[in-house]
Formats: sequence, C-alpha cells, structure tokens
Amino acid sequence: MPTFTANQLTAVSTNLLRAAGASNEEAELVTRHLVKSNLVGVDSHGVLQLTSYIKGIRNGIIKPGAKFEIVRESPSTVLINGNWGFGQVICYKGMSLAIDKAKKSGSVVACIFNCNHIGRLGDYSQMALENGMIGFICVNGDPVVAPYGGTKPLLNTNPISYGIPSGRENPIVVDIATSVVAEGKIRAALYSGHKLPPGWILDSRGRQSTNPADLYEPPLPPEQTKLAGALLPMGGHKGYGLGLVVAILSGILSGTGSDPEITSGLTNGVYISVLRIDEFVPLQDFKDSVDKLIRTIKSSPTAEGFSEVLIPGEIKMRTEENRSKSGIVIPDMTWKSLVDTCRQYGLDAEALVST
Amino acid sequence: MPTFTANQLTAVSTNLLRAAGASNEEAELVTRHLVKSNLVGVDSHGVLQLTSYIKGIRNGIIKPGAKFEIVRESPSTVLINGNWGFGQVICYKGMSLAIDKAKKSGSVVACIFNCNHIGRLGDYSQMALENGMIGFICVNGDPVVAPYGGTKPLLNTNPISYGIPSGRENPIVVDIATSVVAEGKIRAALYSGHKLPPGWILDSRGRQSTNPADLYEPPLPPEQTKLAGALLPMGGHKGYGLGLVVAILSGILSGTGSDPEITSGLTNGVYISVLRIDEFVPLQDFKDSVDKLIRTIKSSPTAEGFSEVLIPGEIKMRTEENRSKSGIVIPDMTWKSLVDTCRQYGLDAEALVST
Repeated sequence: MPTFTANQLTAVSTNLLRAAGASNEEAELVTRHLVKSNLVGVDSHGVLQLTSYIKGIRNGIIKPGAKFEIVRESPSTVLINGNWGFGQVICYKGMSLAIDKAKKSGSVVACIFNCNHIGRLGDYSQMALENGMIGFICVNGDPVVAPYGGTKPLLNTNPISYGIPSGRENPIVVDIATSVVAEGKIRAALYSGHKLPPGWILDSRGRQSTNPADLYEPPLPPEQTKLAGALLPMGGHKGYGLGLVVAILSGILSGTGSDPEITSGLTNGVYISVLRIDEFVPLQDFKDSVDKLIRTIKSSPTAEGFSEVLIPGEIKMRTEENRSKSGIVIPDMTWKSLVDTCRQYGLDAEALVST
Repeated sequence: MPTFTANQLTAVSTNLLRAAGASNEEAELVTRHLVKSNLVGVDSHGVLQLTSYIKGIRNGIIKPGAKFEIVRESPSTVLINGNWGFGQVICYKGMSLAIDKAKKSGSVVACIFNCNHIGRLGDYSQMALENGMIGFICVNGDPVVAPYGGTKPLLNTNPISYGIPSGRENPIVVDIATSVVAEGKIRAALYSGHKLPPGWILDSRGRQSTNPADLYEPPLPPEQTKLAGALLPMGGHKGYGLGLVVAILSGILSGTGSDPEITSGLTNGVYISVLRIDEFVPLQDFKDSVDKLIRTIKSSPTAEGFSEVLIPGEIKMRTEENRSKSGIVIPDMTWKSLVDTCRQYGLDAEALVST
C-alpha cells in the first residue's frame, strides 16, 4: 500500500476537486478537512470520500459554487441554507459564523439545511475550542440504526461532538456516534472475514447476529450501503434516546427532514451550538480547572487490560503527530480509485504526488 | 407496604418540610417534585429523599430561605448562585428564568452553583417543552463512576435530559445517566441477593465484578454510599466522554467544581439550555414532523424479545396515569423512616395521611 505525505494528498485532492468544478476556496476547504481526517486516523472520512463526492457532483447532488445563505438570524440564533454545496464548506462557514456571533452574544445556536456530507465532526468542535469557546455539533442522515426494540433502520448513526478548551493539557474533543459502532466497522469485519461481537447488528429478521454479512442486502461485498438488517444504538435505550434527539435537532429543527425522510447518503442536517466561557467563569480559571480534572483522570490507576486512561481526542492527536512524520498509508483500492477518477479529468495522480 | 395517593404524600411532605424550616413556597416546590417522581415511577427521587433533605437542613448543608441570586446575565446567558437552598427550588426558578429569557432572545444557557440535589432531571426539561421549547439539562455531583480504563470513581453518574415538544403524540423526554446504571440499581441487587450483569461495576482492585457487594466499603448493607469499587460508564469510552463533558459544563463552567472536588452527596452543579423552536422552523411544522417521526418509530416491527418500540418518556407517562388511579406504594422502610422523622418535629404522619 502506498504511503503519502499530507502535502501529496493535498495536491491530488485540490486538483481533482478543481477539475470537477470546485472553486479554489471550496477545493482548499474540502481538501483540508479530508487530509486532516487521514492525519488523525479517521480514514473513513479522509480522501477515500473523494470518489463519492466527485460522483455527487456529476449526479447534481453536490453543487459547486453554491451560495452560503443566511435565512433567518437573531443575535443568538441563525438558520443557514447550504443550497447543496460541499458539506465541509458550508459547515466550516456555519461554525465560523456561530463563533463570531458568540463573541458578541455569548451563546449561539446555528442550524443548517440543504447540506451535503460534512465529514468528521471533531474538526468543527475543535474550531470552537481554538477560539476559547465550548463547541457542540451533531448531524443526522439516512437511516441505518434500529430504534431500541425495533428491527427497521429508522435513525442514522447520528453522531455528536463536543470541543472543550484546556490550558497546558491537550484539549478535549469528544466525537462519537450514538450507535454502537459506525457502519464502516461492520464492512471492515466483512472484508477481513471476522465475526462481530454480540450486540452490534440485527439481521433482516430482527435477530441479533455476529455475522457481518447479515447487515447487507446481497450481492456481497456491498457496493452501496443497502441494508438488510440494522445497526444497534449504543447502550440500548440510552443511545436510542440520544440518536432520536439528534434526528430532531439536526433534522427537524433545521428543516432538513428527519432520518427516515433522507434518501441520499450524502445529506447531513446540522445543529451547532457555541458558548463563550467567560460569560460564566474567567477563561483562565476554566482552563486551569479543566487541566486539573484531566491530570486527575490521567493519574487514575488503570483497570485490568488497560495501560493508561485516555482523554477524549488524545489518540487522534497522537496519530496526527505520528502520521505527520511517517506519512499516511492509503489502501491500494482507495489509491486505484483515486487514480482512475483523476484520469477521467485528464489528471495524472502519480505525477501530482511526485512533484 | 402502604399505598398512598399523591395528595396524602403531599400532605406529609409539605408539613414535614415546613416544620423543618422551609417556607411555604419551598415546601410546595420540593414536595411537588418529589411526589411527581413517585407518580412517574422514579421512587429513588421521590419522598424517600425527605429524610436525607431533613438531615441536610440540620447539618447546615441545605439552607431554607436561601436567596436565588443572579450573578451575571446577558440576553442569552445567565449565571445563578443558589446560596445552598433546596435544589428543586433553585433549579425550578433557574429553568423558569431560562424559559422567560429564551422567549425574548431565542436561545439561553444558564448555569447554577451553590446548589443542592435537584432531583429528577426530566421534570425540568419537561418545563421547557410545555412552553413549546427544547430544553436540555445536565448535572454533576460527587464521584462514583470510573473513567473508561481507570478504576477509581472520578465522575458522577452525570445525567442528562432533553425535553422536546410534540403535537398530538406524547412529548419526548430523554432522561439518562451517562453511567451504565445508577447506583440505586446495585443497591437493589445487593438487598435482593441478585448477581449483576457483567459490565456494570468494578471491584476495589479494578476488576469487573457481578457481585453487588464489591461496589461498597464494608460493613454491608451500606448506610452511606461509601464506594470500594466504581460504576462503569455506559458504552465504554462513549459514556465516559459524555460524562466528562457534563462534569465540565455543569461542574467547571458553573463554578461548582468538577466531580472529584465535590464532597457532599447532595451537591449538584447545573447546566441548562433552552431553545425557541420558531427561530428556526414554525412551531406547528416542528410538532407535526416530530409526531410523524414518533409514529414511524412506533409502527416499526419489533425485535426478538420486544412487544413494542417505546418513545423516551413513554413508560413514565403510563406509570403516572396508573399511579394517579391506583396510588403510590411506599416500601415499609421508607414509610417508617418518614414517620420517625415527622415525629421528631411533633408531626403525626399517620394522622396527616388520614385526613
């Protein structure tokens, strides 16, 4: 499998996106997001996504040059129409706007509709914490998770992310799906021939299964995510309850539509909240207290089978450090499909990474 | 075990609280909360709590007549000093204030410090939804839950609750701890001689255990909640991440202190957010869409072992209907301790329930 630097992947991604119709700004924002996902180890949201985004542009699902449109606004709320542009571009601008507004009003809630796949949530909550604020973001999407007690996929994995600033310690970035696992993990088990732990999926008849093939409609391996079974919510009724809240905040409140109404795997309804800390306590006191809590937790004795206690976001930060030095390994299949897609636009991916 | 109507329990509770120094308003607000908890089936937050509240007043931990004090305020934020009054009184007033402010500004975040045990979170998020708004509340407290990978209890069960209005269907009230279970369930297993399912607790040496006795410091049964082991977070790193966020929002941001710094089992730091729906979509459209989603979920085929798919809050609403008719069963031990506590203030609990 080939290994690339972030700069090499950036060259391929920006050139490909521009060739497919993206503006310089769009190509740069989407690329920055994808390559950062690879750097922090979330390869499912990395350059792997480019082929599906390019397909989205061709099918008219993603509209390059779409207007970022403020539909309704008050000092502490804002509703944004993304006009079906690139999700990363819309959401990056939406989070920036929420942060700017929160600087003045202290607390802001923003919702976005007509928005495509925004990618990795932690990237946006991180923007808030880098501005000394607490950021929250959640998105809905097409249904893949069964409600607790049900068999039909009616909710998306409906992930949530919090970003919280610290002082000398690493900041806290929580970024979790409200399902037990993301669909990508079932697919990985299918490809590698492994069984699943119990409690991850239901088969087409609503029975728990440890066979990853039971999640998908034949033929296998699945080209598209056409589900026969369903993923299960994390912690039973608890993850189901949270996932339902996300469906409503990011789907219904934003005007996107709730999960069962979403038909494109690229659609994300978005709910953002940003909070200025010094409306409550001085920022430095807050950071000192977060540092103290982090150190208390890090110094806890470890349980059987653990060598350390981790802070949310810590593994991703370490992976980013490592991959910034050692490079990003791209699976052969992903690289091949990138090379093929580039070729369709007269681009030579091999040449782009050799400069 | 004796069975009482809500009115009978209300008579006992208001008289006892007034005798112990609460004002009429305080006695009424605390009582309404406790009896409602019994009605909806959350007996752990019902009149059972009175003996510990009365002890709290005697020890100077709960201060009847405490001032509800606004420390700092903007149109969309407010910080409240509860001055160690009754948690229910402070939090009821805090949520009311947040709702009033949100009517004007659209979105409000409120934090409360110097606050005692506020009880059942769903009671407050319900206030928001009854005003056609989305309500969120979370609280921290003294440490009983180990961080994922650790053995020492460093976080509280740090519960969260969302209230979401509906139209013709029942509203949605999510009310969950970020631990696998509340401590009360371990205690119940200990008393009834049952084993625990795996994954609920760690023993004093950080090993998973199914013996409820392993959670507590001897001698058993535990009088106070002095832990030898720890509860585990729900869904491993996911519940841990959420619990850590709650510790920071309701503990550090409010100025209460984070979980490891809290020494009284009655302390709660509080974080509230309230959102006006019609800043984003017309309220009736929102309600119609929530109704539609509820009906879609309720009509899902059921999984093995389930007879229906429930909406968060549904069981509590049914229990309230049932108990409003058939009465509230109070365990002998709880009733005896209420009778004893009443007697210390010259009150005859038996006479209070016979009128």
